[in-house]
Amino acid sequence: MNPLSSPLLTDHYQLTMLESYLQQGMQETAVFELFFRKLPPTRNFLVAAGLEQALEFLENLSFSAEELAWLKSRFGPALINYLEQFRFTGDVHAMPEGTLFFPDEPILRITAPLPQAQFVESRLINLLHFETLIASKAARSVLVAPGKLLVDFGMRRAHGAEAALLAARAGYLAGFSGTSTVLAAAIYGMPSFGTVAHSYIQAHANETAAFEHLVRCHPENSTLLIDTYDTEAAATKVVTLARKLAQDGIEVSGVRLDSGDLGMHACRVRRILDEGRLEKTRIFASGNLNENRVYELISSGAPIDGFGLGTALDVSSDVPALDCAYKLQEYAGKARRKRSEGKATWPGRKQVYRKYDRPNGRMVRDVVALEKDDPQEGEPLIVPMMRSGRRINGINGKGKLEVIRQQAVANYARLPEPLRSLETAPAYPVEISAPLRALAKQVDDEPSAITSAPNLGA
Amino acid sequence: MNPLSSPLLTDHYQLTMLESYLQQGMQETAVFELFFRKLPPTRNFLVAAGLEQALEFLENLSFSAEELAWLKSRFGPALINYLEQFRFTGDVHAMPEGTLFFPDEPILRITAPLPQAQFVESRLINLLHFETLIASKAARSVLVAPGKLLVDFGMRRAHGAEAALLAARAGYLAGFSGTSTVLAAAIYGMPSFGTVAHSYIQAHANETAAFEHLVRCHPENSTLLIDTYDTEAAATKVVTLARKLAQDGIEVSGVRLDSGDLGMHACRVRRILDEGRLEKTRIFASGNLNENRVYELISSGAPIDGFGLGTALDVSSDVPALDCAYKLQEYAGKARRKRSEGKATWPGRKQVYRKYDRPNGRMVRDVVALEKDDPQEGEPLIVPMMRSGRRINGINGKGKLEVIRQQAVANYARLPEPLRSLETAPAYPVEISAPLRALAKQVDDEPSAITSAPNLGA
Repeated sequence: MNPLSSPLLTDHYQLTMLESYLQQGMQETAVFELFFRKLPPTRNFLVAAGLEQALEFLENLSFSAEELAWLKSRFGPALINYLEQFRFTGDVHAMPEGTLFFPDEPILRITAPLPQAQFVESRLINLLHFETLIASKAARSVLVAPGKLLVDFGMRRAHGAEAALLAARAGYLAGFSGTSTVLAAAIYGMPSFGTVAHSYIQAHANETAAFEHLVRCHPENSTLLIDTYDTEAAATKVVTLARKLAQDGIEVSGVRLDSGDLGMHACRVRRILDEGRLEKTRIFASGNLNENRVYELISSGAPIDGFGLGTALDVSSDVPALDCAYKLQEYAGKARRKRSEGKATWPGRKQVYRKYDRPNGRMVRDVVALEKDDPQEGEPLIVPMMRSGRRINGINGKGKLEVIRQQAVANYARLPEPLRSLETAPAYPVEISAPLRALAKQVDDEPSAITSAPNLGA
Repeated sequence: MNPLSSPLLTDHYQLTMLESYLQQGMQETAVFELFFRKLPPTRNFLVAAGLEQALEFLENLSFSAEELAWLKSRFGPALINYLEQFRFTGDVHAMPEGTLFFPDEPILRITAPLPQAQFVESRLINLLHFETLIASKAARSVLVAPGKLLVDFGMRRAHGAEAALLAARAGYLAGFSGTSTVLAAAIYGMPSFGTVAHSYIQAHANETAAFEHLVRCHPENSTLLIDTYDTEAAATKVVTLARKLAQDGIEVSGVRLDSGDLGMHACRVRRILDEGRLEKTRIFASGNLNENRVYELISSGAPIDGFGLGTALDVSSDVPALDCAYKLQEYAGKARRKRSEGKATWPGRKQVYRKYDRPNGRMVRDVVALEKDDPQEGEPLIVPMMRSGRRINGINGKGKLEVIRQQAVANYARLPEPLRSLETAPAYPVEISAPLRALAKQVDDEPSAITSAPNLGA
C-alpha cells in the first residue's frame, strides 16, 4: 500500500457511509463544495493551491488487491464488490491554482454519484488545505520582499515527506525563488538552492580551509556559511581567501548568516566585503525567519540579498491549519444545507464572480451566486477542470507550475492595497447574491431541511 | 522516485557537502547527535517517537538509477560514482520510543563515515521531529483524560499523507485509543474508529431515516451524529428509534456531538438518553477540541465518554514545530562544538542518566554525561539500536507499537507531579556532568575550535 496514493488514506467513516449508501441504493448525483470558513487575523487573503495533486488523486483512485484483502475482514461483501470496480467518474469545477480567494467562496466543486463524491472528501481536504495554507503563508513574504531571493529551507521541520514536497511546490507557486529540497526540484522542475551546514565548517581543521575547499569544489556558485564561530572574523577570512582565489579566476558568490542579530551582522559583513573589493558577493540570511522578520530587516535597510525561510513557511507556524470544509450542497437535484451552530453553509451549486475597477484593474468585490440563472457582473472564478473523471485540456508538464506562479504574482498586483500588507486589513467585500439567500431560506423552511432546487438543473 | 523513500528527499546542501568531502577524502568517523533545544511553555516534557521510521530509512537508503540519472546533469562524476554504492553502514544509539526527555538530551546518535552521517541529517530530523512533536502533544490529552476514549480525527488537516499516518502512529504511541485514518490502522495495526459525516444525515430525507439506516447497516457498533440540525431534538429521535430497534435486538451504541457548547449539549443529551432508558448509549464529542478543552469538559463534569481530537493533535496547533538540531559532536576522534550565538552545543559522545527516588519510583533528575569514563548514577537512557547499518534485536512486527505504548503510559506515572499538569511546571533538572563541561571548555580553548578527545575512544 503506497501511502501517497492508497485510497485507504481516508477517514474510517467514509467506508461506513459508503456501505450504508450502497445498502440503500443511494447513488444519485451529489454536489459537494470545498471552502474555507474564515481568515485568521494574519491572513488578508488565501491563495488556491493543491488542485494539481487533487486531480491526480481523483484520476488514479482505485483499490489494489492488497487493500481489498485488508478491508474484507472488516466490511461486508457488498462494499468489497463495489470497491473492486471503484473509480472516480464525476466532474470537477474549481478555481485555478494561484487564484486569490476569501471565506465562503467555494474553491472546488465535486459532482458525482453520492458514494464517490463522499468518499473523496478526506484526501481532497488533506491536499487542498495544506497547499493553500502554505501558498497563502508564502505570499506574505513575496509581497514584502520584492526583488529578493526567497528560498524554502523547511524540509527538515515540515510534517513528513509529503509536506516537505508540497510546501516547496506551494511556496514556489506563490512566488518563492526555489527550495532546498532536492526531490521537489526533481519532481516539480523548480530551482533548488543549497550552501553548507555548520558541521561542514566544524569538520575541517579551520574555517579558512573549509571555505577554500568549498569554493574550489563548486567554483561556479558557492555560498560560504560564516557564523559558526565569529561572523565578522569569518568575513575577513573570506576577503583574504578571495584575493588568493582571484588568481585562479574564482569568485566567492555569496556568504550566509544564520544566527545572532542578522541586520547588524549583515551591515558589518557588507562593509568588510566592500572594503575587500567583494561588492558582488551577495549576503544571504537564514535562521528562524518569517515574513515579519524579513519585512523588518528590509525596512531597516539591512543589506541582505536573499532569505531562507524554513519552519515558519513549511508549517505555517503562526497559523498551522485553516478552517476549511467540504459540504454537501445538493443531492438528487435538491439543495442541501448544514445548519449546525456556527457552521451553517450556503446551499446549491455556486459560482464566484470578481469585479475589478476600470482604471487600474484592482479587485473591488466578489459575489457568490448560484451557478445557474443567477448572472452577476465580473469574472467567473470557477471553471471546469475534470469531466467524467478525466482532466480537461490544461497546460501539462513542467511548464505548468511556472505559468501558475506568474499568474499568482500577477494576481497580487490586483489586490486592494491594504490587503497587500502584513497588517490585518478590513475584510475584502464578498457578497451573497439574493437568489442564493432565497434558496438558503427555502431550504431552512422545509421541515426536513431539504427543498427542491428549481434554479439548479441536475 | 517514491517520495517516502527517495534519498533525494534531502536538502541540496547535503549533496554539496558530500561532493566536497569526497574530493578531500574526508571520510573518517563522525558522530552526530540529535537533540531539542528548549521546551515551549506548553510542554513540560517531550516523548521520543519516530525511531522506527528513522531506522527503516537508514536500513533502506540507496539511490535508484532514475535518481542517479537526475543527479548526473547537476553533480560531478565522482559524486555519482560514490552514490551508486551508497549505503548507511554506521551505528545508531538512541532513546527507545516512548522515553520522556528534556532539552539538551540527545535522543539519537549516529556514528558513521562523515559523508554518510552528514547525508542522513535532513530526513532523520524530518521524521524524529514530527513524531516527537505529535506524541508530546498527544501525551497532554492522555494525562488529563484517564479512562476516556481518545481518537485521532486529524487526517484531513494533517500536513499531507505521511503526516496523517505518522500523527496517528505518534498519537497511539503516546496513549491514544486509535485513529479515524484507515491506512494507519492497516499499516500499524492500531484500532480505527468512525461515525458518519453531516452529509450523511443531509443526504437522507430526514434525520430519523438516516439514523435507522446507519444502525441497521452497522448493528454491532454505530455512533449517531446528532448535531446536524437540532441536537436535543435529534437525541429525542434517537430514543424513539431505539425503542423500535430494540424489538429487533439492536442497540444504539453511541451518539456524537460536533458543534455548539459541547458540555451543555452533553448534559442535556445524557438526560434525554437516560430518561429514554438508553443509559448504556455513550456520548462522544468532537469539534475543534484540544487538551485544554478536554480538560475543561472533564473538570466541569460533562458526561462525555470519548473525544475525537483532529487538527489540534495532527498539526500540534499551539506548537507546530520544536527547536531541534542534529549536530557534529566529534570527527576523526576529536570533539567538536558549534558556538554560534544562542546555538552552542555540548561536544562529544554523550549518555543521559535518569535518577528515580526510592519509595515511589518517580523521576528525580537527569545527568547528561560523556559516554566513556564519566560514570553517573541512574538509568542510562541511550541504548544501541543499529550496528553497521543493521538493526539490533528489538521486538518486531505489530506487537512492537503496543509495547512502546504501554511503556509510554507507564513512563507518565513516573513523572514528577507538576510535570503531569497542562500548566507550565518548573523545569525538570537536567545537569551537565563536570567532565562534559571540561571538554566543552577544552574545545573552546583550542584556536581552531577542535581538540583531541581523550575521554572519547574512537
